[in-house]
Amino acid sequence: FIQQLDMELAAIEKGGYDHFMLKEINEQPETIFDCLRGRLIATTGQIIMSGIDNNIDILVNAQRIVIVACGTSWHAGLVAEYFFEELCRIPVEVEYASEFRYRNPIISKGDVIIAISQSGETADTLVALENAKEQGAFIFGVVNAVGSSIARLSHAGAYTHSGPEIGVASTKAFTGQLAVLMMMGLKIAYAKGTIDHNRYVELMKSLESVPEKVKEILANVDTIKAIAEKYKDAKDFLFLGRGYNFPVALEGALKLKEVSYIHAEGYPAAEMKHGPIALVDENLPVVFAATKDRYYEKIVSNVQEIKARKGKVIAVASMGDEVIPNMANDTMFVSDIDEVIAPILSVVPLQLLSYFIGIAKGFDVDKPRNLAKSVTVE
Amino acid sequence: FIQQLDMELAAIEKGGYDHFMLKEINEQPETIFDCLRGRLIATTGQIIMSGIDNNIDILVNAQRIVIVACGTSWHAGLVAEYFFEELCRIPVEVEYASEFRYRNPIISKGDVIIAISQSGETADTLVALENAKEQGAFIFGVVNAVGSSIARLSHAGAYTHSGPEIGVASTKAFTGQLAVLMMMGLKIAYAKGTIDHNRYVELMKSLESVPEKVKEILANVDTIKAIAEKYKDAKDFLFLGRGYNFPVALEGALKLKEVSYIHAEGYPAAEMKHGPIALVDENLPVVFAATKDRYYEKIVSNVQEIKARKGKVIAVASMGDEVIPNMANDTMFVSDIDEVIAPILSVVPLQLLSYFIGIAKGFDVDKPRNLAKSVTVE
Repeated sequence: FIQQLDMELAAIEKGGYDHFMLKEINEQPETIFDCLRGRLIATTGQIIMSGIDNNIDILVNAQRIVIVACGTSWHAGLVAEYFFEELCRIPVEVEYASEFRYRNPIISKGDVIIAISQSGETADTLVALENAKEQGAFIFGVVNAVGSSIARLSHAGAYTHSGPEIGVASTKAFTGQLAVLMMMGLKIAYAKGTIDHNRYVELMKSLESVPEKVKEILANVDTIKAIAEKYKDAKDFLFLGRGYNFPVALEGALKLKEVSYIHAEGYPAAEMKHGPIALVDENLPVVFAATKDRYYEKIVSNVQEIKARKGKVIAVASMGDEVIPNMANDTMFVSDIDEVIAPILSVVPLQLLSYFIGIAKGFDVDKPRNLAKSVTVE
Repeated sequence: FIQQLDMELAAIEKGGYDHFMLKEINEQPETIFDCLRGRLIATTGQIIMSGIDNNIDILVNAQRIVIVACGTSWHAGLVAEYFFEELCRIPVEVEYASEFRYRNPIISKGDVIIAISQSGETADTLVALENAKEQGAFIFGVVNAVGSSIARLSHAGAYTHSGPEIGVASTKAFTGQLAVLMMMGLKIAYAKGTIDHNRYVELMKSLESVPEKVKEILANVDTIKAIAEKYKDAKDFLFLGRGYNFPVALEGALKLKEVSYIHAEGYPAAEMKHGPIALVDENLPVVFAATKDRYYEKIVSNVQEIKARKGKVIAVASMGDEVIPNMANDTMFVSDIDEVIAPILSVVPLQLLSYFIGIAKGFDVDKPRNLAKSVTVE
């Protein structure tokens, strides 16, 4: 007795979700957990990553780290810049692969290049690395696709273990990249002695708490869905953040562009006064990544400035914060977490916001127009 | 016998132009000339800048240059990054002052900080410098306003000599900053031996030719005016460029935002495939800074990709180029010039395009809404 299952293969692969993008956003507690598992052991104070362990001298003594990437991976690189500079005290430069490769970049002995790519096949990144490798740089790959070209070309590396990502707009690969980069930064900083044992363990615990905290966000998506409905017809968005949340603002804007075709742009919040604030009127939603951190008072002022010009403010705020939610038109909450780990949490509501706006507008969020999953042409 | 002059003081100060912005754009042949005068002497192969001469050892031996700025000055810093890295072989990092100051930035002995500010009073830049100075960095100021706070705080510096800039959207101060930074780069590169005498003199001559070449652009503004009329109702613009023209794309987008309130965004051209190309449809004008340089073939491909998706292409192209003008919907020409000097020319048509779109929309281009000339609050 054979009963035919009336289901498409794609539907099975989507595991009950309407779209790969939503499935992959929802997989993040699991994919981040998988990325940390067997590597980060807060109870014993260990981070086990053979790519780092085997090259610890090179990494600890790096005079300069150059991060090469494109698109969403480039945003992960910006987070890593803040993280590495603060914790490891190594100057970091983040380069667009497409720009880096055609320049005559300065590669010195002792420079480390970190390449970030979901597919491991990004053409511009690949060629940039080949050139740098010829010049004697040490290449460390942060890649999702096992055995990909960039993974093979690197001297060492760490996989993100996020599983196959089908949605063109990257979500779980991004948080996987952040988790890997943060473990790297912690490991190097501790080996180098630029953070003490207490801070090291504190940040390990903070990172370890991320999967549960992402779950909390995913358990309460109705508010985000309602915000998406409310603003879906906006023609433009600004996304603003400071410090660790600045790259989150860029990534939030990119997601929205990709799946809703709304012109969204990210900026460091203080830069808005140098031009972009001219765009602000009652029709412009401004999204703030505004969790509690050292920039909090400054970002409160920036929110006030937007409100004073009648802009609509949507905030990603820390649970328990009563100031920003009172000023903002709409708020999406995330659990409190150490500010240097915050990006991996504060990006999640923005992924969901983009997803819900994209489907509210009736677009194919898994395959946005004009875009390919991996950019394997130059 | 006294006849009363029926003219406002402001009108006199505008020197016959309708707006300060147009006056200041038109002053550029003169202000760039004034900036170079007495400093750059191509015939004898000399660049005389006492701020450099008195500190040449510090600059030649710099392990790293950190450029700190905001807004338009930050774009001048990006041009300088490309210029210094290529010619002087010194790694350069360009930082938003607002981000730099609140981080715990890495300042090492031998680091040079270049601060760029038209007013010399930009609050975030000023505080960032105070912190860096305390940590022992050498501060070099590139400032327009003589005797301003940043000029006084710097260990050495060079004024741009652009004269008072009244229009809120910076134009002549930007080209003045580029001229100063290029002279600095040339002088350091030659002292360091990273460019030979022939290339040094060649680039000096190229820079010396800029005022005349800006004059040519200003003598033919009717095409630009017509393009402005044609696209003034567009809701969004993208500005794309590669290499030396990438910061020009950012600056072109910022100008348009400031004076027309159109949401214009700049991107490195290759990055569009990692997201922004999803925005492209028949309603989206895409401006390419696409003069003849090492990236030319690649930018031709990018133009084709936009055309294939029905986007409207407006190009800044080199006089005599027949490929890009044939593909573009509209073209603004500039004289051929060495690629490393090109930004100072290719930005001028974009300043004019923004100006003409702003006035075609009936806005007060000299005092755009929400903006102040100098951002002296944090």
